[in-house]
Amino acid sequence: MSGRLAIVGGDAAGMSAAANARRRDSDVEIVAFEKGSFTSYSACGIPYYLGGLIEDIDDLVARSPERHEENGIDVRMETEVVAIDLDRRELELAGGAREGFDQLVLATGARAVAPPIPGAEATEPARTLDAAQRLRERLERGDGHDAVVVGAGYIGLEMAEALIERELRVALVDQAPEVFPALDPDMAVHVREAAEGLGIEIFTSTSVEEVLLDDDGAPRGVRTSAGELPARHVVLATGVKPAVDVATSAGLQTGPTGALAVDAHQRCAGVEGVWAAGDCVESHHRLLDRPVNIQLGTHANKQGRIAGVNATGGDLVFPGVIGTAISRLCKREVALTGLTEAQAADAGLDAFASTVEADSRAAYFPGNGPVWVKLVVERGSGRVLGAQVVGAETAGKRIDTLAMAVWNGMAVDELQWVDLSYAPPVSGVLDPVLIAARVAAKEL
Amino acid sequence: MSGRLAIVGGDAAGMSAAANARRRDSDVEIVAFEKGSFTSYSACGIPYYLGGLIEDIDDLVARSPERHEENGIDVRMETEVVAIDLDRRELELAGGAREGFDQLVLATGARAVAPPIPGAEATEPARTLDAAQRLRERLERGDGHDAVVVGAGYIGLEMAEALIERELRVALVDQAPEVFPALDPDMAVHVREAAEGLGIEIFTSTSVEEVLLDDDGAPRGVRTSAGELPARHVVLATGVKPAVDVATSAGLQTGPTGALAVDAHQRCAGVEGVWAAGDCVESHHRLLDRPVNIQLGTHANKQGRIAGVNATGGDLVFPGVIGTAISRLCKREVALTGLTEAQAADAGLDAFASTVEADSRAAYFPGNGPVWVKLVVERGSGRVLGAQVVGAETAGKRIDTLAMAVWNGMAVDELQWVDLSYAPPVSGVLDPVLIAARVAAKEL
Repeated sequence: MSGRLAIVGGDAAGMSAAANARRRDSDVEIVAFEKGSFTSYSACGIPYYLGGLIEDIDDLVARSPERHEENGIDVRMETEVVAIDLDRRELELAGGAREGFDQLVLATGARAVAPPIPGAEATEPARTLDAAQRLRERLERGDGHDAVVVGAGYIGLEMAEALIERELRVALVDQAPEVFPALDPDMAVHVREAAEGLGIEIFTSTSVEEVLLDDDGAPRGVRTSAGELPARHVVLATGVKPAVDVATSAGLQTGPTGALAVDAHQRCAGVEGVWAAGDCVESHHRLLDRPVNIQLGTHANKQGRIAGVNATGGDLVFPGVIGTAISRLCKREVALTGLTEAQAADAGLDAFASTVEADSRAAYFPGNGPVWVKLVVERGSGRVLGAQVVGAETAGKRIDTLAMAVWNGMAVDELQWVDLSYAPPVSGVLDPVLIAARVAAKEL
Repeated sequence: MSGRLAIVGGDAAGMSAAANARRRDSDVEIVAFEKGSFTSYSACGIPYYLGGLIEDIDDLVARSPERHEENGIDVRMETEVVAIDLDRRELELAGGAREGFDQLVLATGARAVAPPIPGAEATEPARTLDAAQRLRERLERGDGHDAVVVGAGYIGLEMAEALIERELRVALVDQAPEVFPALDPDMAVHVREAAEGLGIEIFTSTSVEEVLLDDDGAPRGVRTSAGELPARHVVLATGVKPAVDVATSAGLQTGPTGALAVDAHQRCAGVEGVWAAGDCVESHHRLLDRPVNIQLGTHANKQGRIAGVNATGGDLVFPGVIGTAISRLCKREVALTGLTEAQAADAGLDAFASTVEADSRAAYFPGNGPVWVKLVVERGSGRVLGAQVVGAETAGKRIDTLAMAVWNGMAVDELQWVDLSYAPPVSGVLDPVLIAARVAAKEL
């Protein structure tokens, strides 16, 4: 194509679109608008920056605006797009300037949602690099010893661990009855144990009612249904919503999840030349066969590539997701793919679950630790619908083997015999995946 | 069944057969004959025992004779079976005693093959626990500072590393032009670099002509085509042969590899009630579609299970192998599955290879290191025929994801989009497997 490609949002999805468009078409004019002060950064790295494992915030930036500029991409930092005029093919910027486009990629991401409680404005979200920078500065000033993290999903757990590494006293509060609600509770309990082992105080089935402020408007505590907790730092990890206001105001459609509806080409439903990718869009879940909205850098990267390629005349297709995720939490690795037992039941599938505890390495090898593998298996066919893994360091990436089983619709009866690798430093003679499949095949 | 199940060989395959037979049939009489002094031990753990990472040799024994006895298995240690009379259904033991059987499982393993050179009798094989015990005693006596390891396959490399950990000066000698000949040379070079980085002196394209002995008959050096090397310890890792003499003397058939020919039920070709498993048998290679003889504990365990179950009236089928293997060598992990580029060419397949260098973790994450992933891809279909991975610690287990791709016949075009896991401590935003598939798909 010739003409002008505009991109709204300068993080993973947007800049993947920009870079892939540039690679495909050296002539197209590419301009990207980012309202914050960083491009292409690793939001997933924020807890490690806060905890001090990553010293320099710039290390989290995969590619700076300058490097994008060198690649022929015009990056406008701290520039917010406030409206889209689809008829005139123009963007309106904060301040009123207008910018034309021929093709448009929306990669506006998601934003943290603060719970509707008094004092929420004095908290920090766990999500942006700007917020992380502020919080770390306050931590390094030694400003208070107590912290409360609200939300015990994987980001909340990672943040709690980071604050423990800063030698704070940390309470983790969630309304749900168990931490890491993306896992089935019988697997999440291994995460809770590890978190408690690090000294994180966990308050589940507990709601946060108010952030208590001192006279300066800074947090001094949190009032919860389980009583008052001291807190000089309050971090919100209570979930996010896709940032779609500008798009919907322009008439673009959202789907049932509230995120932008796109087809498998990342094309916004019913509109030519407008594409969207990343945290702001819906993805097709291959097992649930319905749209989901998942915020993950890996999807953002892939979808951004598809949007950038297709916006410059290519024809790539996103085949959908199966809900794979991983985290290293409190010295354990935690991972899942496909459907949990609860999701399978909700979806009306006739499934059973089977869990094994195995060794992460040969039993005698230093560093060996337990690995729990839970499989969710369709009755009759024996097909692996989902898997969850919690275990010692290095255990987690086994989820990819299981993701391949789910993706390919393999049955446990076959999976138990697959030629997987074995050596004492990396597994038992039968990998935990094979043991799990064997036990499930017997139960079948 | 009722009657008597005899098992020849008390290591992985044999004792897996025994345990699974017992689980299936609480009445069958089970007797196992082992000529050595250990059962169910991890030969793969020998280098770690020699190097001192594993202190106690008993740690390498997964299940002692006593524990097998508690499980109702009659284990006869240091008892060699010297002949099989298939007509009379009897075994002959060294010493002349005879033992009857109704069903028979042969799990005689493999034995080290010494090269036909003068002095070979004064060397130690890298293979048995008995030999490892002798060698470690000599190392701990501080008997000499120089060692030569003959054979630079993965066992030779592991042994060389173990001896370096004992602070010996170690030379590694092989006739082949590169170390780790199971890999393509362009991948093996990363292993060589790591081995040299540890201080192992490598002599490839070098043949060993004589082990030089002192007046006591102990090694003092090795004469090679590249000159004389001092050596108080000479370890042979020059390969093994299936131990089939007793079986072939009884009329059982071997296949083209020299190992026992069995069907997918682990039944010895043409004989009722005689089964074989582990290092002494052929396995069907799913990609080459011909028998291979691979010595690996994981196959031994699976095949032993099948033999034990089928010998007690069950009906399990071994679906074959694809050549998956892994090793942690010299601070790197090295793994392969399916066909190498060379094997694909030998098999007459129209294939190309594609290699990427990626990060094992997020680029900014402590402990990140390079991972090289080489894919061997069929032209036209794009099917992944094989993969090789060399990289930093934790990189190797990715081979299982690739083994799943090979097993399922996946094409790179699909593989590049699979929903694999991402978090900064365990991978880049795109796992190296996805990056490799993406690059190969473009080349396709």
